[in-house]
Order: sequence, then structure tokens, then C-alpha cells
Amino acid sequence: MSAQKPSIPQGTRDFGPAVVARRNYIFGVIRRTFEKFGYAPLETPTLENLSVLTGKYGEEGDQLLFKVLNSGNFLKKQKGEVVKDEVTPDDLQAGPRAVLPKIAEKGLRYDLTVPFARYVVMNRGTLTFPFKRYQIQPVWRADRPQRGRYREFYQCDADVVGTDSLLCEAEIVLMMCEVLNGIGLTDFTIKINHRRVLGAIYQALGGEGTEMDLFTAIDKLDKIGRDGVEKELAERGFSPDATDRLFALLGVEGSFEEKLERLLAGFVTAGVDADNATADGYKGLQDLRRVYEYLQEFGFAQFDHLDFDVTLARGLSYYTGCIFEIKINNVNMGSVSGGGRYDNLTGAFGLPGVSGVGFSFGVDRLYDCLEELNLFPAAVATTTRCLVANFDADAERAVLPVLRQLREAGVASELYPEPGKLARQFKYADAKGIPFVLLQGSEERAAGQFKLKTLSTGEERVLSLEQVLAELA
Amino acid sequence: MSAQKPSIPQGTRDFGPAVVARRNYIFGVIRRTFEKFGYAPLETPTLENLSVLTGKYGEEGDQLLFKVLNSGNFLKKQKGEVVKDEVTPDDLQAGPRAVLPKIAEKGLRYDLTVPFARYVVMNRGTLTFPFKRYQIQPVWRADRPQRGRYREFYQCDADVVGTDSLLCEAEIVLMMCEVLNGIGLTDFTIKINHRRVLGAIYQALGGEGTEMDLFTAIDKLDKIGRDGVEKELAERGFSPDATDRLFALLGVEGSFEEKLERLLAGFVTAGVDADNATADGYKGLQDLRRVYEYLQEFGFAQFDHLDFDVTLARGLSYYTGCIFEIKINNVNMGSVSGGGRYDNLTGAFGLPGVSGVGFSFGVDRLYDCLEELNLFPAAVATTTRCLVANFDADAERAVLPVLRQLREAGVASELYPEPGKLARQFKYADAKGIPFVLLQGSEERAAGQFKLKTLSTGEERVLSLEQVLAELA
Repeated sequence: MSAQKPSIPQGTRDFGPAVVARRNYIFGVIRRTFEKFGYAPLETPTLENLSVLTGKYGEEGDQLLFKVLNSGNFLKKQKGEVVKDEVTPDDLQAGPRAVLPKIAEKGLRYDLTVPFARYVVMNRGTLTFPFKRYQIQPVWRADRPQRGRYREFYQCDADVVGTDSLLCEAEIVLMMCEVLNGIGLTDFTIKINHRRVLGAIYQALGGEGTEMDLFTAIDKLDKIGRDGVEKELAERGFSPDATDRLFALLGVEGSFEEKLERLLAGFVTAGVDADNATADGYKGLQDLRRVYEYLQEFGFAQFDHLDFDVTLARGLSYYTGCIFEIKINNVNMGSVSGGGRYDNLTGAFGLPGVSGVGFSFGVDRLYDCLEELNLFPAAVATTTRCLVANFDADAERAVLPVLRQLREAGVASELYPEPGKLARQFKYADAKGIPFVLLQGSEERAAGQFKLKTLSTGEERVLSLEQVLAELA
Repeated sequence: MSAQKPSIPQGTRDFGPAVVARRNYIFGVIRRTFEKFGYAPLETPTLENLSVLTGKYGEEGDQLLFKVLNSGNFLKKQKGEVVKDEVTPDDLQAGPRAVLPKIAEKGLRYDLTVPFARYVVMNRGTLTFPFKRYQIQPVWRADRPQRGRYREFYQCDADVVGTDSLLCEAEIVLMMCEVLNGIGLTDFTIKINHRRVLGAIYQALGGEGTEMDLFTAIDKLDKIGRDGVEKELAERGFSPDATDRLFALLGVEGSFEEKLERLLAGFVTAGVDADNATADGYKGLQDLRRVYEYLQEFGFAQFDHLDFDVTLARGLSYYTGCIFEIKINNVNMGSVSGGGRYDNLTGAFGLPGVSGVGFSFGVDRLYDCLEELNLFPAAVATTTRCLVANFDADAERAVLPVLRQLREAGVASELYPEPGKLARQFKYADAKGIPFVLLQGSEERAAGQFKLKTLSTGEERVLSLEQVLAELA
């Protein structure tokens, strides 16, 4: 076999020890928070049937699904001895759409929401509702790789289905704060809005254009500014008068409660219909007020991080109630978390009426924030706490029971596996980020003592075994 | 979109909360053990280039690789505007081997060893050797699914490369014991052998047949018995006399040390050449003796679990030194762990001479053992510790600060999200395995107290908040 220079696919990454440790630190905070709030872990397979995935993410999403070739002779699907489906020259002529169904039945998980919906439908007979699950797993997208966009990346989702209680929305705010506080991020804003508030705003403009066009334009406000939005709305058939009214509503200022009051007044003035179910902005405002009250009743102390942002639209997704997004203010980075309430998680799988609310953290972005702000605790970076130096065969023999005792005391420790130059052994400890080196030369051995060196300071202390254990355990 | 009945691909599994918790319990013990011995985590991508994977697992392995379709128009690979590679009707005629290279460049990780070798080669400039890494990730094989054999399953590998020290082998025995003890398995045997001992046995038979035929036959001894092995060896050109000598050597009995002595005597009698590098059984015996001594020097107390098993061959793998395997004796199950030393991890990627030693746990089998022996601790099964009952809106308001305090004390807790029938709330707690339900009806509220119910016993106690926190935290 000829030697080859190996590589990994574009848009994928190896995570070496230091990075894994840092990622696991973030995952750990997220997982503990989810569990503290009663969410239980779910894991679904990497491989899903394409029949489950296709059609759930729009036309573009279908293009971005990684498809897995059928095993065996993928050109001729067989059942027993009979060829059931064979790729023909005509199929080749017709193109990928004709060939694909014959050669690929499975794809890679694209997000965690569709597999969750599939799981709920497949297990509805045995699940107890409300069902609170979290899921921390990688997903794959055949996107064009670029800085910060990967083809394989992790999502961390928590959802509760089978209850309409706004307690869940309030607890999402609590969990968001707890995770961000837990990893040391302090300058953040949790934006909250409600799809029905946006619907009422659309109604307040007088029914011009379409609701979707309006939301799409609002969603871009951050990027293209008021001028850009005005231009886009004009192109979509909104009058200048409607656009003015829009910005009056989007521009409401004040505290959370003041914004609620002022929007309410604005809707009443504009004659927004309280009985229009699809655009019942009053219900939206009520929901937001209830979430706010829940937080007060919880004794929530971080209202300065919570922003009722009327311009938050969360793209074209399937949300129908409260929507959320987190922005880290002191880093130039898109949102690190988002979510909202939806009415119809499982409709595509034949189970209507399953509503719920959920949110998701983007771990890669959180990682980049912590790195940029230098917020990873030093202790996260290493696994081994103590390297036992290896002088020679006799010294090695003498320290083996010590190594055992260190490990029995729960201290991650290793003996340099070969006798040899101390410089090399210290270099090893340095490279691995090991904070302590334990040495027992012949002199110390004769005295039944050890030298413990702290690498960060260079300090060396002569200690008994008991003292070493007390120091490191 | 028409509703469909969703399913998951054959050979894959969903893991619900209880199963994830139990699997994480096993992963946790393995991870902590690896880290305690100085192994650091590595994670590699799910997607690897087929150029990296192909040819590393033999003809059969290549068949079992899951291949991922190129994205975009997979029938016509383009560079810019130019079609570089197009699937033609002639390719169709020629079959999958002609079509595959044009439509698929990536595959799913098949094991953790090849990606590890690739990683070492790609990062050899920055890694510090010896490099001790562990890796706990899923792998995929397009095998025919059957009971206990999955197409997506986890492996847990630990390897150290860049040292020949037999300390590593001794520590593998220690780690194996620590993991098994840690998950409560007590009736196990760690089998150890050495490839060179097997080589010397081959030499001792007088050079008939081939070494590989001999190892393959020995490997089946457990399954087909002595008669079966004798028959197979006869077919492969081994004389009855050689086969008799074989079973004399395989049949050596006694303690670890006695077996070493008796095999040594057997090799000398048979005239095994001490200078034959590929079959230096004396070196194999020396290595095993040194591993044994290391364990003695460590104060290893579980020699009754260690068996020098001369019949252990570990299939046709790439091992060159010590080899290991673990058998759980009180469960009918194949080996739950195996490994060994290899000379040439990275040769296929152009970096010769990287030797190392490693081993791997099969988590699915460990899981099945624990389940069969009923060894999962009860505490593993649940995440939420306390369900706070929800009587009505007033009661809900009153318990929210309590819920906050429980969580601040680290107690995983949840409030049933809607007021309603207590029976339903208790059923919810039951289904989720929540051990405690906290109730505060109007009576308790007036008295500033709580009722704490232990579901397993039905016991109810009236407690103050401080007492509740002390009880649950």
C-alpha cells in the first residue's frame, strides 16, 4: 500500500485534548443546567431515513442533507434474488433527482428537532407528557464551509412538549442566564418577543403586503438598517404611511412593562382586532406579561439582561408564540442561542396538536466567545494533575506504589514511561499542561521523602507521602 | 405534505432518558479511569475521506464502510465551470466499483484506530510523545443487523504511542480492573498473551503450514473445540504430530509464573530459535514476565482475575506484542474489551516506526452485562430529584421561590407546569423515576411548611423549607 498524505474533509475538525476539555466544560454547564430544570437526555441515531428528513427543512435544506449510499450493490437494489430498482442510463440522463432515490435511503441528522419529533411520534404510546428532553449531539450540513461555519457541529437543544404553560418560557430565561453565568459570560442580552405581537403589528399597518414579507424585512433590520427595510417594504407593496406606523411601533421604548403598555395602546389605536386568532397581538402581550410575572415570582435578579425586543423575528421558522435569542454584547458574533414556542411539532409525521417550546445553544459560538474574552478557567485545560518523574529502573520500582496511592486518592497521575533525561520529562509535563511533577531521587528515597515541583512557579518542596497526597487530592 | 409513519434505519437505536443515563454512567467510569491514568481526550470527525479509510480494514471492511454521496450534482463533479468527472452509462455497466469513486469521496468513521493514526500523522510536528489519548465516539458499519450487532455503536479506546515501555501494558491491566470494579462487575477474567509467544509456538511445531493459518485456527478454539481445530489444521497442512505438540504447549497449566517457566522449557526443547526476530518467543515470555512484575510492584491485588491464556490470538489484527481480552464469566457474552501492542500504527500514512499499545471497551456489551446482572445503581436512572406539585395559581406563585432555592442548592427539580389533578402529577413523577414530590397545599402554606413525599415508600413528612433543603441537597 503506497503511503499517502492524509487529510480530513473540508468543514470538519479534529479536537485535540485541550479543545475537547474546553468544549466538555461548556457541555457540562449546559447539561447540568438542563438537568437541574428537569430535562432528561435523549440521543437519536446519526443515520436517519431520508423519508424522515426530506421536506422538513425547505428546498435549500434538502440540498444540504448529507446522503448515505445504500450498502451492497447500490446500483441494483435487491429483495432476495429479484432486482427491485436499478439505476438505468435514462436515470443518468434525467439527473441526480432520478438517481438519488434508487441509491440512497439514509442521511445524516441535519438538526435535533426533526429527530425529536420523530421520536415523540414513534414513542407516543409510552411517553408521559409533558415530556422534557434535552439533546446534545452533532449535526451535519453540506454547506459551503467558511470561517465559523462547519459541516459537522454540535447543537444543544432543550424542549418541553405537551404543555402550554408559560412557566416553561420563564424557565428558558432562567436556564439561559444560568448557563451564561456558569461559563462566566456577563455582558449579554436575552431578547424576547412574541410571534403574535409581530402579527398584530402587521395588522396595525392596515393589511398591506404579506405578513411573511413584513417579518422577513424586520428580521434584517440589524443588518440593513431602517433605510434598507423601508426600501424592501416599498418594493413589497407597503405604503410609506404603513412603514411609518411600523417604525413607530418598533420604536417603542421604556422598561419591559412600559413597552407592553405602549404597544397595547398602539394596537388599540390602530384598531387591531382582538378576535383575529392568527394575529392576536393582545394574547401575545398577555403571554409576555405572564412570563415577566413568572420571573418576578421566581425572584429573578437579572432583568437588566432581558430585553423585550419588538424587532426580533427569528427568521422564517415555525414558531407561533414567544421567541428568544441571546446576543453576547462584548463580542462581535451572531446570536449564541435561540428558540421559541411552536404549535405543531409532529404534524408532518401524522400527529397533530403537539405543541411545545424549546431553545438551543450554539457551542461553537460560545466557545469562540469564551476564547476571545479569555474566560476559560485554567483548570479546564488539563487532565493529568501530577507527573511522576522516572529516574531509573530502581526509582521507577519505588514510585509505583505511590502512583497507585495518588490514583486511589482520585489524583489523575502518570509515571513518565521511560527512565531518561529530566529535561525531556519536564517538557512533556509542560506540553500537556500538567501542573505538578513529583520527583524521588536516590537521596529523597533514602529519606522516604519526595520533591514536589509546581511548574507554574518553579517552587520545589520536600514533602512526605502524606503531605503530597494532602496537597494534590 | 402527506403524513407518514416515521421509522429509524435498521441497526440504529434511539436512546431514551433512562438508557442514556445508564450509558453515561458506564462512559463516566471509563472516562474517569482513562483520565486518572493520564490519557487525554481526542475527538475526530464523523466524516473521513474515503482515501483515509479505504484499504485499512481489509476487503470485507471496505464493503462495510458507509459512503456519503458528494454534495451538489453528484453525477457530475465540477471544478468551476468544467465537468471533471461524470458518471457515464459505461460506468453503470461496469458496476459499483466504477461509479463509486465518482460519486462519493467521504465515508463514516469505521473505528477509532485509523482516525487516531491519521491524527498522529497530521499533527506529528506539534504532538509531544509519548502521546496518550482516549477517544469515546460512535462508529458505523454497514453490517447485516442482528441481535447485539448494530450499525451505529460506540467504541471507547485508549492508546499510548511513542514508547515501548511495558509499564503501559501493566497499566492497561490496572485500568481494565478499575473500570470493571467501578461498574460493579466482579466475576471477570483478563486474558493476556503475546503475539511472539504464538510465533514461537508456530516455530515449535516445525514450520508446517503458515503462521496465519495457525493463529486463525487457535482463535476459534473457544467456538469449535479441540476437535474442530485439529480438523482445520489438518486441512491446512499441519501433521498430526505438529498438532499434538501444539496442544501440549497450549495446555500448559499452573500459575502465571509457572506457565512462563513451562513454556520456556517447551520452546527450548523444541529448539525455538532465540534470534528469529519475527517469532522470538523468549522476548514474548520476557515481556509478559515484566508486565507481571510491574503489577506486583504496583501492589496489584487482583491477580486471581489475570490469566496468561496461551490460546488467546485476537484474530488477524495488527498486534505484535502483548494482547489482551476481557471475558465476563457469569454472563454468556463475547469479550467486552480487547487490545494489544502494535509496531506500525501509521505506516499506511507514510510515518513508519510509530509503535504503541491500546485497548478498547465495548459499551453495548458492558451495558447488557450490567442489565443482565441487575448491577445498575438505582440512582443512575433518574435526573430530576424533586417534583414540586402544582395545586393552583396561588400555590404555584408561592412555590416558585422554593423551586429556585432547590435549584440553587443543586437539587434537580421541576414544578409540574400546570395546576391539576394530583394523581396525574404523581403518575408523571412515577413515570420519570422522580423519587420525591414536594407539596404545599393551602394548609401547609398558612403554616409556612411543606409536605415531602418519598414515592418509593409512600412516607409523607411535614417539614420546614430548611429541612426540605437539608433532606434533598
